[in-house]
Amino acid sequence: MNLIIDVGNSAVKSAVFQNAKILRSYVFPFEKFFEKFQQIKKDYPQIAFSILSSVIKDTSEIEEILRNETKLFVLGENTRLPFKNNYASPQTLGKDRLALVAAGAKEYSNTNLLIIDAGTCITFDFKNDKNEYLGGAISPGLQMRLKALHHFTAKLPLIELEENISLIGDSTQKGMLSGVLNGVAAELDGIIDRYKADYKYLTIILTGGDTQILSKRVKNGIFANPNFLLEGLNYILEFNKTQ
Amino acid sequence: MNLIIDVGNSAVKSAVFQNAKILRSYVFPFEKFFEKFQQIKKDYPQIAFSILSSVIKDTSEIEEILRNETKLFVLGENTRLPFKNNYASPQTLGKDRLALVAAGAKEYSNTNLLIIDAGTCITFDFKNDKNEYLGGAISPGLQMRLKALHHFTAKLPLIELEENISLIGDSTQKGMLSGVLNGVAAELDGIIDRYKADYKYLTIILTGGDTQILSKRVKNGIFANPNFLLEGLNYILEFNKTQ
Repeated sequence: MNLIIDVGNSAVKSAVFQNAKILRSYVFPFEKFFEKFQQIKKDYPQIAFSILSSVIKDTSEIEEILRNETKLFVLGENTRLPFKNNYASPQTLGKDRLALVAAGAKEYSNTNLLIIDAGTCITFDFKNDKNEYLGGAISPGLQMRLKALHHFTAKLPLIELEENISLIGDSTQKGMLSGVLNGVAAELDGIIDRYKADYKYLTIILTGGDTQILSKRVKNGIFANPNFLLEGLNYILEFNKTQ
Repeated sequence: MNLIIDVGNSAVKSAVFQNAKILRSYVFPFEKFFEKFQQIKKDYPQIAFSILSSVIKDTSEIEEILRNETKLFVLGENTRLPFKNNYASPQTLGKDRLALVAAGAKEYSNTNLLIIDAGTCITFDFKNDKNEYLGGAISPGLQMRLKALHHFTAKLPLIELEENISLIGDSTQKGMLSGVLNGVAAELDGIIDRYKADYKYLTIILTGGDTQILSKRVKNGIFANPNFLLEGLNYILEFNKTQ
């Protein structure tokens, strides 16, 4: 069994895999790592391998825990990958994005694929039908936009995301929610349309924490898969085990 | 002559008007107000009236200066406006947005009008062909998005806006620029398309500090007018003078 760990900007996502099959997934704050790890090990004592991907700076403590109890792979710029990486600056490429492209390379190797991960940030990653990763884009996520409107202005309040939002907001709160939620939906559709204009045959995957709220609002045909990143990490782990 | 003052989240915008004609406009930091005001008064000693619109909390000091040397109108929730305000919470509506709608009410009184102000925030304001203001939306502006990507993540750098950006960024910097610049352009086009679907005859004005960089990138037909807000404030001032 494999333990998959994705340390993001907002939370840790983790999952237990048996071969290519996800058995269970977890989301918890970074500070709870030790406690959660003990519980997962107790529930799945057969875990022998682990892989860690992180977009934060220092994960040395959790690496030590994982290394003591499993055979650990840390996803880094020199990790062997199941696709060709044409990114100009691989040393600064978010490890989460490598994991997404790995998942794409496994399931859609001969397909032009746009992967949109809507979490803290919204990342766009494009892999062509020759299994070459070309890069993409990074834009603020839903929650980050709401936080930014409050943080970087003098008077706008900090508000919670809500589902049912009309185009024309007739209050500050409804206006902010429309700007953020309708804005992101319009952005996704517009960016997808630009990729479609360049690549006639294009598959689009939507993943990340905001998959559900956005997938209803995007007009373009997309595949929603909230576990895509974890599947990619598991694939990278399997790919490197057999080295 | 009228002195128009718009205190925004990032800077103060000011202009001298003679009747409906703009003679000169200024942009300066809030801290420089006193110094700039002295200079403007020296250049245009005929200034007799002023109007102040602010989205920040405390402007009492500059109000005092303006009141001592001009007949000052402070734009507030009780100011008489040249349009019908159907906003549900007028007390929290940004005064800058009232000014934009006033400009729209003057120049486009019988037209469905969407006003997009791209500054610190991007505001969308809709006024129908009966000169009724219905509300709109607020979304983070270009600079705010770049700042937010840095501020709310562990590893993304703070970068400067650049003009020539491709869809697929092959470095962190190019990816952030694509996400922000192509993202906002796609958002504007998508939101405009939604208004067009609801209102067959629609005029669109684009204004604010990022007018130039965005107007080239938006596919929809728009009128770019960087001074729209200042013209609206001047109109509110003229409208209230004749009370």
